Amino acid sequence: MRKKINKKNRKNTPYYIWGIHASLAAISNKNRIIKKIYCNEKNFETISSLKKDSKIEIKVMKNNNLDMIIKENISHQGIILETKPLNYPNFEDVLKNEELLIVLDQITDPQNMGAIIRSMSFFGAKTIITTKDNSAEINGSLAKSASGSLESINIIKVTNLAMSLDKIRKNNFIIIGLDENSEVYLENMKDYKDHKKALVLGSEGKGLRRLTKEKCDLLMSINNKNNINFTTLNVSVSSAVALYELTRKNI
Amino acid sequence: MRKKINKKNRKNTPYYIWGIHASLAAISNKNRIIKKIYCNEKNFETISSLKKDSKIEIKVMKNNNLDMIIKENISHQGIILETKPLNYPNFEDVLKNEELLIVLDQITDPQNMGAIIRSMSFFGAKTIITTKDNSAEINGSLAKSASGSLESINIIKVTNLAMSLDKIRKNNFIIIGLDENSEVYLENMKDYKDHKKALVLGSEGKGLRRLTKEKCDLLMSINNKNNINFTTLNVSVSSAVALYELTRKNI
Repeated sequence: MRKKINKKNRKNTPYYIWGIHASLAAISNKNRIIKKIYCNEKNFETISSLKKDSKIEIKVMKNNNLDMIIKENISHQGIILETKPLNYPNFEDVLKNEELLIVLDQITDPQNMGAIIRSMSFFGAKTIITTKDNSAEINGSLAKSASGSLESINIIKVTNLAMSLDKIRKNNFIIIGLDENSEVYLENMKDYKDHKKALVLGSEGKGLRRLTKEKCDLLMSINNKNNINFTTLNVSVSSAVALYELTRKNI
Repeated sequence: MRKKINKKNRKNTPYYIWGIHASLAAISNKNRIIKKIYCNEKNFETISSLKKDSKIEIKVMKNNNLDMIIKENISHQGIILETKPLNYPNFEDVLKNEELLIVLDQITDPQNMGAIIRSMSFFGAKTIITTKDNSAEINGSLAKSASGSLESINIIKVTNLAMSLDKIRKNNFIIIGLDENSEVYLENMKDYKDHKKALVLGSEGKGLRRLTKEKCDLLMSINNKNNINFTTLNVSVSSAVALYELTRKNI
């Protein structure tokens, strides 16, 4: 019983969003509940023109007072919002309605996850499936590096990723894991036009877990053209390249 | 005369490299002059096994003493090198010997330029042409975000980018500018198999300058599949996608 109450509390705990792109996108999002806006004079006008709900309190203050709101060393660019988490659809509805899922296997770095969200939005992917534990928290750092795109992405957190991948497959998705050890290159991938697709990404360094790999229908890598040095791509870069390839094959 | 002396001084001014990947790659690079190595005990063994020139002084110290070497708030991961700039070939030699050039039009952010260098190395591109003014300094931040790849890339700084693009074209390169306003998509690009290629990238936000655009043979964009929100890609992501497409067409 105690656990349930804690979860509920966490869901209702306000958190902060900062930075121009992230904040303006949040203010424009009709599904986003905003409790308070803190900004400098320069941003006040822009915000007033966007804000439809006149009941939200705006506190105009100097940059050094904005600095005091969040203790961490952040670049707020003159705007901080106090907000509530977004409501996301449930897993079953997503399996019915979406054709392209991004599955994250223990990506804990909010900057990497934010960068992936930004690219997803560009390439028209709408949904992330990730684990409740060992994944980046949905917070201000994530929102900042997603540069406004957090507002248009659904994030579904599941307890057991392997079981969820089974469920995804049963719903006629082909499951494609990005794995730098695979000798099958993304660019030679067959055109799975009639399949719904789930792209599975692991964390930088660790990659996909063994069990996650076993649940993939295909393991693909990006062809490393450098045959002298050992080099890798940043996870947000490799996921963008994979999304580019997957969505170009949809044409 | 005074200007010349200043330039020479700048060239000889030591600078720092920090972080595991960047430092180990620098130590392994036989063309890199290293003046001194500062590291914690944990990194000492790894370094001793790599270091071929036994004359380089290694100072082993605690992490909090390493913190004092560079005043900025950096993540040194227990290793800092005092080093000298690399020597790069001249513009004319590069035009003769290379088949793929990356031209940077006023990318001033070292993290973005570093990320581009990391992706270049992965996709087998070896040379950057950029401007002497208004481009990122070649320093420790750049080396850190290039994650070791700075060692294998040539960076040629030119005074006038437009004139240099003319010279590049005269040497039988096709000049391809990445421009988000172009309605010609990269994925529909013709296969210029027999051409040497120069990929021109602008800074995030500003993009390519007018004169730079005029000097391009082709302007291409990455197809934005999101038709609801206005979203863009991070410059390091878009350059990696462009490199992926350009190098896949070489197969």
